[in-house]
Parts: sequence; C-alpha cells; structure tokens
Amino acid sequence: MLNFNFQNPTKINFGEGQIEVIAKEIPADAKVLLVYGGGSIKSNGVYQQVIDALAEHTYFEFSGIEPNPKYDTLMKAQEIIKAENIDYILAVGGGSVVDGAKFIAAAALFEGSSENSEPWDIIAKQAPITKALPLGAILTLPATGSESNGNSVVTRDGNKRPFSSPFVRPLFAVLDPTVTLSLSDRQVSNGVVDAFVHTIEQYLTYSVNGKVQDRFSEGLLQILIEEGPKALATETKDDLEVRANIMWSATMALNGLIGAGVPQDWSTHMIGHELTGAHGIDHARTLSIVLPAVMKVKREQKRGKLLQYAERVWNITEGDEDVRIDKAIKLTEDFFKTMQVPTRLSDVDLGSDDIELLITNLESQGMTALGEHGDITLEVSREILTQAL
Amino acid sequence: MLNFNFQNPTKINFGEGQIEVIAKEIPADAKVLLVYGGGSIKSNGVYQQVIDALAEHTYFEFSGIEPNPKYDTLMKAQEIIKAENIDYILAVGGGSVVDGAKFIAAAALFEGSSENSEPWDIIAKQAPITKALPLGAILTLPATGSESNGNSVVTRDGNKRPFSSPFVRPLFAVLDPTVTLSLSDRQVSNGVVDAFVHTIEQYLTYSVNGKVQDRFSEGLLQILIEEGPKALATETKDDLEVRANIMWSATMALNGLIGAGVPQDWSTHMIGHELTGAHGIDHARTLSIVLPAVMKVKREQKRGKLLQYAERVWNITEGDEDVRIDKAIKLTEDFFKTMQVPTRLSDVDLGSDDIELLITNLESQGMTALGEHGDITLEVSREILTQAL
Repeated sequence: MLNFNFQNPTKINFGEGQIEVIAKEIPADAKVLLVYGGGSIKSNGVYQQVIDALAEHTYFEFSGIEPNPKYDTLMKAQEIIKAENIDYILAVGGGSVVDGAKFIAAAALFEGSSENSEPWDIIAKQAPITKALPLGAILTLPATGSESNGNSVVTRDGNKRPFSSPFVRPLFAVLDPTVTLSLSDRQVSNGVVDAFVHTIEQYLTYSVNGKVQDRFSEGLLQILIEEGPKALATETKDDLEVRANIMWSATMALNGLIGAGVPQDWSTHMIGHELTGAHGIDHARTLSIVLPAVMKVKREQKRGKLLQYAERVWNITEGDEDVRIDKAIKLTEDFFKTMQVPTRLSDVDLGSDDIELLITNLESQGMTALGEHGDITLEVSREILTQAL
Repeated sequence: MLNFNFQNPTKINFGEGQIEVIAKEIPADAKVLLVYGGGSIKSNGVYQQVIDALAEHTYFEFSGIEPNPKYDTLMKAQEIIKAENIDYILAVGGGSVVDGAKFIAAAALFEGSSENSEPWDIIAKQAPITKALPLGAILTLPATGSESNGNSVVTRDGNKRPFSSPFVRPLFAVLDPTVTLSLSDRQVSNGVVDAFVHTIEQYLTYSVNGKVQDRFSEGLLQILIEEGPKALATETKDDLEVRANIMWSATMALNGLIGAGVPQDWSTHMIGHELTGAHGIDHARTLSIVLPAVMKVKREQKRGKLLQYAERVWNITEGDEDVRIDKAIKLTEDFFKTMQVPTRLSDVDLGSDDIELLITNLESQGMTALGEHGDITLEVSREILTQAL
C-alpha cells in the first residue's frame, strides 16, 4: 500500500425523508442560494420538499445549470450572490449541478493575484482556492460522487476541465433514494456506469497489495453489476432497496476512500472527456466506449489486476490467463450492453475519421501521459480509440 | 438498508514516516499534553519520533495509562492540564491510551449540572458532552478503531463502561505500520481478533439488504483471516505490507462506516466486558470465547447472515444449511485458535461456578436485553456462557 492522507468530513444523511434535515444542517441565519438544473426537481416533488424544509430560512434561487455545466452559466450566479449577500450554497440535483455549485461557491470568494484575474483562473491556471462559500448538496442522481468529494468539472468553449479543493467539498449531503425513482432509464444507466468506471479507474491498475482498497472496490463493482440491471427492469425498477444500494455505492465509489493508498488510472475519463467535448456524448457513454479499449490496449500492464478482477468480480476461474482476461473484458462489455450504453464509437456514429480531432484536443489539454504509469501517450490514446471503433 | 447519518472527519495519515506530520497537524501555539501508557513507546523508538516532531511545540507528558484505562488514573491528568493550561491532547498508544485520552479531553472541559457533579457523570449519568479539548492520536496497536471514532471505554471499580461523543473523535490519526513491528505476538493476535469481532458485531445480525455494508464487512473479515496468521508466523511477521493491511482493516472495522444503516449486535462485547471486569482477561480473548457461543445460541435468529458468512467469507458452498453453518462456526473457532487466543472459558480456567457472578454483573449494568433484537436476556446470556464452557 502507498502512503496516503485521507479525510472526508462530509456528513451523509441517507434514506427516505431525509431532505427535511437541511432545516437543521443549514444555519438559521444563512442567506441561501438554491442552485438547480432544468426544473425536473419541480415535477418530481423534490423542489417542494426543499422549499418546505427551508420555510424558516432566507433563500434565493439560481436555476438552469446544464449537464456538463458551463463557465458562462455558472458566472451568472455571481450577480445574485453579490446583490443578495448570499453566504450558503445549496445544490439540488445530480453531479453536474453539484459540480457547478462548487465552482459558484469558489468563484464567489475568489481573489485573483492581479487586476486581470478572473475565476476561470481557478481552472486554467489552477489558481489556489483559499476559501469558498459553504455548500450542501441534495443528490437526485447517483453517479459522480460529487456530493462528498472536492472535485468538479466545468466546461468552457467545449473543453471539460477539472478542479479540486477541500474548500468546495459539501459540508453535508442528503441521499434519499426515493428521489431517484423518477429518473429516466438513461439517467439511471449513465449513473451506474459512471460509478462502475470510477471504481475501475482506482482499482484496475497494478497491485500495491492494498487489500482493503481492493476488496472494497470489488464489492462495489459486484453490487453495481447486480443492482444496475434491476434498476432498468420493469419488475424491479421501483424497488427502493435496489435504488438505495446503487446510491450508496456511487457515493462510496468516489469519496476518496477506495483510491487512498493505491495507484489510479483515469485515462478512460480523460479520453472520454474529449468525446463529450467534441460530440456532446453523455459522460457515462464515453466511458463505456473507452474502458473496454483501455483494458485491451493496456492488457499487459494491467495483467495482474485483470486476472484478480476476472476471479473476484466475475467468478472466472477456468482457462489460462489470457482466456480469463478475455472473458472478463467480454463480460464487462456485456454488462455495459445490459445497461443500454454504447461500447463502440460506431454505436454513436463515429468512425476512424473522427479520431484525429480527439487526439488534437487531448494534446491541447496536455493529456499526453495518461494512466497509472503515465505511459498513455497520444499515440497510445490513438490506439485505444482505434480499438474502440 | 436502514436510514442513517454518517460522518467521520478524522484525517488519516497512513504509512511509514508519517509521525512527523503531527508538527503540522497540531497548531504551533498549542500547549500539548502527550498521553501514553507504560513506556513501550520509549523502547520501540516511537517516543523519540514524537519528541522530535514536537521540537517546536510546547508539550508536557502524562504516562501510565493502563490497559482498560481506569477512571482514577485518568483523573490524575486533570492536575497538569489545569496547572499548565493544556489545550491539546496527543494520544500515543493503542486503543486503551486513545480511549483514556478521550476521557481526559472531555473531563477537562466538563461542566456539571450541579456542585456535586464530577466527570464520572459523563459515564454514570451519560451527562451530555458539549465540548472537549482537541485530540490527535498516534496509533501503535491496530485493534479498536478508537483512533477515528468517538467511542471510549473507561473502567471504575472493575466495571468497564462506555461513552461516546463526536467531541472526542480525534481530529487526526497517524497510522504508521512500522511501529507495529515491535508488538508482541499476544498484542498482535488480540488486535486482529478485536477487529474481526468488531466487524462481526455489525455484520452478523439480520439482513436489511445493505449490500455495501455487507461486502465491505466481508472484505475486512477475509483480510483479517488472511493476514492475521501471517503477522504471527516467523517468516512473515516482519512483512510491512501484512502489518499495513491489518492496520487499515482495524480502523475501517470501527470507524462507523460498515455499521451505518444496518442493525448491530454487540452482545459478545457486553458479555466479554464482564469477563475482563471480573477476571482481568484481555478484551480480545473474552471476545474469542464468547463469539462462537453467541453464534451457536443465536443460530436461528442469525441464520440468513450465518449462511451468507459461510459462503462469502469461508467459501462454503457444499452441504445443507445446517452443515454450512456448523462449518462456518468451526472455521471461526479454528481461526481464533490459529491466532492463539482461547475459545472456551475452560481455556482461561473458568467453569460453570463462575457464570453466576458474570450474570449478576450484567444485571447490575442493565445488560438485560442485548443483541440486534434486544432478546438476549440474562437467561440467554447464561445459556451463551454455558455454551462457552
């Protein structure tokens, strides 16, 4: 195991009816900015629950945060923050809303190093974040883990760019699985696949004998494989226990715990981001296209962990090493197909002619040494994308 | 899964050489009380590392905290705290030292409700803790999980009594597995067995379909079964990776995570405490005596989870249900024997004549409805102890 520091102070409030706890979690004298997306929270009853819980609070609203939240959209929130002296952000939505709220919280207290500084420097120049407005999250779509980590991804000019700071980690998160019952199949499948690949990025690297991290990751993968399809099947999709197990798994997949003390990959995400940036493909659907190709191209470097994955996650014990690895990759692709997400570029109408733009964009983002060994050069990324055709 | 709230803000600093981080974790202007036990930290080099790291800090020392720390011992620390205006507690040791330091931290700021109030009210009257001195922990014996939870057990007049408060949860914990290399076999085996039974207490109850909690618990049990014996075997006992995996497992076994949202038992602990109180038996060795008997006596109520435990932890898939359960209990006992701890009252020279005193003591502590169903009456405790003869 590698040395590590781990801290996750986010308070989790999990279960049916927990939205009402925000009345106590948010200070009574706070001036709250309620941040949400396109309004689905109004049709599924979540908005009303939030408003009811905030009855004794002073709050304002900022809506319209889109999937892959845009810098220009997020900056518009700064006007109301200044005008109303907002001092608390409450995000209500999925990962994009929570990510966007994190940028809003950091931008509100951003102090640049010069007159020309702007909050975009947080991302473009990785300008240090020394403070942010306090933030809470009510999660409506289990997927990204954003509700209890300090990570955020913001898009500007078609480029998805990450930043991270402990100051934007939500102080609390409400995880009520009942609110996920109104999600579309597409949102559910995207969420399960996203959480699955988050786990893989921190697990399928090389062994440092981190047994707790490995066992926990394998457990999460098994749960997502078991429960994901149930959340799409007519007879089980309304089962609250299925939704609860998916929701808690997605949070645990990216709250920092399983990645502490082990190498991490993230090449599937970085390559996938370019597919979203250039072609607007849902984040999770870029991952299901790229991951199997990464497994195939990086097979030798990941051999030990692929064998462990085959045995412990898929119960594959028959055949020689290469047979077992092939079978594990095939079962991964089959799982993605069951989850109704694409596993090939051709599934989203992209072909070999589209690869070069993605490589160019990776290069312009400096993504020239990806993966746990830093050996996924642009040439290897091209090989991965070609494998994914 | 049951509704739950979970928060664990303790910052974990894990790995070789991490003791030096205390120089930054503890405020520079703090007046620190270094709290430790019998002096083994002086012979194994930990004391020197701590002193070196605190070179720029003002600190005082309080030593002599015994296993199963005593109220009278802990209260002696109050004199130096008052005399030197101590405002930070640094615990260096195993679970008993950390537990003791928690009581010291809470007692220092205890304000009773009347003139006759005394810090013992924290335990005897469960007087509310509203503040405590800040506390950090350098763990030398992986076992209790006390380094990142708010629990503590203090002994007075032979009675082990628990208390719990978020105010006494360590702000940070240093987990350096190299410091565990100097532990005796007995300390190692006690630690592994303690962590194992902590996990069991939160796992082997009845199913609420908490899949994350179950998978994580099963992973921890598997790791302790694999790694525990290696930490006792001559050829592997100095393997730092073995020690690291045991150390991180023991923390995860009782940091609140695996028990959030699931029923919990703790009857083995409560009955075991009476064995320690009346006969001075090491805590872990009381657990290894009581647990197999609890499994046997509560077999029907725990049937579903016993079968799951048999299959997932011990890979038992052959035979009918009762055969599989019998085998799982037998393998648990065998594991304890491999870990060189007793599994019977007769192993510690106790017999049927000794049971009545234990029952009387359970009664006087109000331990008349133990277990996840609250159905372990004194009569059932007697049956468990008889089963353990």
